[in-house]
Amino acid sequence: MVVPRLIERKRNGEALTPDEWRALLAGYHAGTVPEYQMSALAMAICFRGLAVEELAALLDGMIESGRRLDRSRLTRPLVDKHSTGGVGDKTSLILAPLAAECGLAVPMMSGRGLGHTGGTLDKLESIAGFRTGLSLAEAEAVLYDLGVVMIGQTGEIAPVDKKLYALRDVTGTVESIPLISASIMSKKLAESLDGLVLDVKTGTGAFMPDPAMARELARTMIALGEARGCRVVALLTAMDRPLGRECGNALEVRESIDLLRNEGPQDLRAVTLALGEEMLLVGGVAVTRADARDRLEAALASGAALDRFRRLVERQGGDPRVIDDPSLLPTAPFTSVVTSPTAGLITGIDPRVLGRAIVALGGGRTRTDDVVDPAVGMTMHVTSGDVASVGRPLATVHARTEAGLVLGRQAVLAAVGLDDGYEPRPLVEARLTRDGEEAWTSVAARG
Amino acid sequence: MVVPRLIERKRNGEALTPDEWRALLAGYHAGTVPEYQMSALAMAICFRGLAVEELAALLDGMIESGRRLDRSRLTRPLVDKHSTGGVGDKTSLILAPLAAECGLAVPMMSGRGLGHTGGTLDKLESIAGFRTGLSLAEAEAVLYDLGVVMIGQTGEIAPVDKKLYALRDVTGTVESIPLISASIMSKKLAESLDGLVLDVKTGTGAFMPDPAMARELARTMIALGEARGCRVVALLTAMDRPLGRECGNALEVRESIDLLRNEGPQDLRAVTLALGEEMLLVGGVAVTRADARDRLEAALASGAALDRFRRLVERQGGDPRVIDDPSLLPTAPFTSVVTSPTAGLITGIDPRVLGRAIVALGGGRTRTDDVVDPAVGMTMHVTSGDVASVGRPLATVHARTEAGLVLGRQAVLAAVGLDDGYEPRPLVEARLTRDGEEAWTSVAARG
Repeated sequence: MVVPRLIERKRNGEALTPDEWRALLAGYHAGTVPEYQMSALAMAICFRGLAVEELAALLDGMIESGRRLDRSRLTRPLVDKHSTGGVGDKTSLILAPLAAECGLAVPMMSGRGLGHTGGTLDKLESIAGFRTGLSLAEAEAVLYDLGVVMIGQTGEIAPVDKKLYALRDVTGTVESIPLISASIMSKKLAESLDGLVLDVKTGTGAFMPDPAMARELARTMIALGEARGCRVVALLTAMDRPLGRECGNALEVRESIDLLRNEGPQDLRAVTLALGEEMLLVGGVAVTRADARDRLEAALASGAALDRFRRLVERQGGDPRVIDDPSLLPTAPFTSVVTSPTAGLITGIDPRVLGRAIVALGGGRTRTDDVVDPAVGMTMHVTSGDVASVGRPLATVHARTEAGLVLGRQAVLAAVGLDDGYEPRPLVEARLTRDGEEAWTSVAARG
Repeated sequence: MVVPRLIERKRNGEALTPDEWRALLAGYHAGTVPEYQMSALAMAICFRGLAVEELAALLDGMIESGRRLDRSRLTRPLVDKHSTGGVGDKTSLILAPLAAECGLAVPMMSGRGLGHTGGTLDKLESIAGFRTGLSLAEAEAVLYDLGVVMIGQTGEIAPVDKKLYALRDVTGTVESIPLISASIMSKKLAESLDGLVLDVKTGTGAFMPDPAMARELARTMIALGEARGCRVVALLTAMDRPLGRECGNALEVRESIDLLRNEGPQDLRAVTLALGEEMLLVGGVAVTRADARDRLEAALASGAALDRFRRLVERQGGDPRVIDDPSLLPTAPFTSVVTSPTAGLITGIDPRVLGRAIVALGGGRTRTDDVVDPAVGMTMHVTSGDVASVGRPLATVHARTEAGLVLGRQAVLAAVGLDDGYEPRPLVEARLTRDGEEAWTSVAARG
């Protein structure tokens, strides 16, 4: 295998053979194919894509580079949820304990911040002591005992994907449908799932802003999963504004706790429940959507989901007191309220602008070895459709330094669009399965 | 500077600013921008190209990352030649002492094997003891004393280019007109040249097989040089078959010595003399092409050019006895003659197939830290236009192992095309200057 030659062929638009993909992945895993070759190959893939056979070989090579979750002791249906990522998207923190409370086993394996979006692991780690780096055996034990575990991709699960994911993050090679699909599905399929619910974001803040591309991503992942015995349902949801109000690691944990208390913003609640319904349905623990909805709402109203989250936090080494006193979460030394300089209808809040500002404030990564600041971020006081008057608070910026406040303020003013005629995307737009696509309004009306 | 963002912008087809290019190059030079980011950026450039201002900033940043040759003590015109690379292309070894013998100062700064093509440094180093790694001060002294020096790109000359060139070689990012142009011209312009003659290869074995692309490469380099006070002339020459008979490091030194002895194959002699004429003309030491030709031929016939090469080899630490006894050069333990399995007119010999086989035999690099085997390669016994009968020797393969013989034999049989209707390219096709292009037949007829 002469790697530069393989890279050239991919660059020129040729398909590599399954054997070549296996050899490339094995070499990358072993370190004989260096990072600088893999990043060039990834960039070539961004331009050239992957043929169906190439993608299958890449995915299988990733899965086979590690172990799979041992589900032999589990009796509950094993279902996970994955979001393609956004700003303010904290539904994983809510859904993991909530769906477990409703009878599923949820091995929520998540990632770290990637590009302008946040990562569930970074959020969880803003809880003092919370260990996301469990071994697979430890995770299996927690999952067996609590019906839920929230972990990072252990070194045992798809290690080649883990290495490539970190590399893509810092080499501008994130936005590729086959690479995104293989990365997500390698981890999820290594979990030995019965079912998977995908939250595929669309709009300016999504990795695939274009709805057509988001659909292609969803269809690609559905095909990969269904071909390997996992039922996959995808919801297309809006990421043309942040989800919920809080953006930034500790801030989002706080808002997740609000939701689990049956409080919190309506948009976040609506998306969380829609995804939760799909999880319960795909796992077969609810037969109708109305039944699924009732069980989710009951688990929130009773405090049972919150309690399960508390037990999870404690079991994974985190300080459970934050559940009852979120003020124990890290806070930023500097905060400042940004007010509207003009009046008008708020027609959009660009999540990409906010997300990049959070990275610049230290809340995300520009290099694989960057340490993430849990405390920084923005609390949005408005959302799309609100009317701003002059002086109305738009957001509170949470920063580590005074310079950070200035940066955050500029980002908020740049992100908030007034009267530009933009029509917000529907919060949940469509539902995709292996059988095709249905508008969410039809799904909801049918119940 | 958030590097992944810059890479993304380039990937998306945007131009980066001159300041961003300066910061990227400075960071890469300092090591804060890692190889894996630079290779991804290079791949994005392969797809997206560079705007004029981007290329100028890249080139200037490369030149300014190091020193320039001090020409204050030199009285001769300072002229160099550069080839875009090919298989069997050893004209540098001949032209450096030859043009110096005719009155020029020739600071022949060359590279190592890149992709499927050989490198002058690798060839020179097959002469026992030959030091190509002179410091710039040492090189200046040799140049002053002998009118010629043959060195690698010292760490002092365009170090950022040196680093990037090595990276591109192993990441499938060689074939990019702006990157090739900036790399070549950064080194050449750092030599403080009066004039530069470019040998731009076309045909299957060239980096830019497409003649239109080769022309664009030539025009790009001419524009970069002329804008910075260096007169640049380019000849388009054929690389749809190897140049000369010998392909491989030590083998090519042997053939270069033949040429300097006024022997050797006619195709190699013709291209060498055409380039030599341009060097003498651009340096102003000959006024007419006929005058230039006469001086070059005289220097070959008298043995003066060979003698200057002998002094150069000795001065740079090499064993000068190889000049009179080329059998002292490294030889391969295994050789085998490949004969023609069929009869027919030989209409082409694919240099890329041969070049890749030489790399596979150990005579080139697939990683920056690969050690090159000087002895391996092929001696071609036929060229385009010859008629092969069954059993006619096509080539001798020189290999380190018996497995290498098999590989080399396969390559020869794959490379030699019989009766496929292919028309060989003219050896020298055209001459390009800042004023435009002229067919070589017109140039030669005018004299």
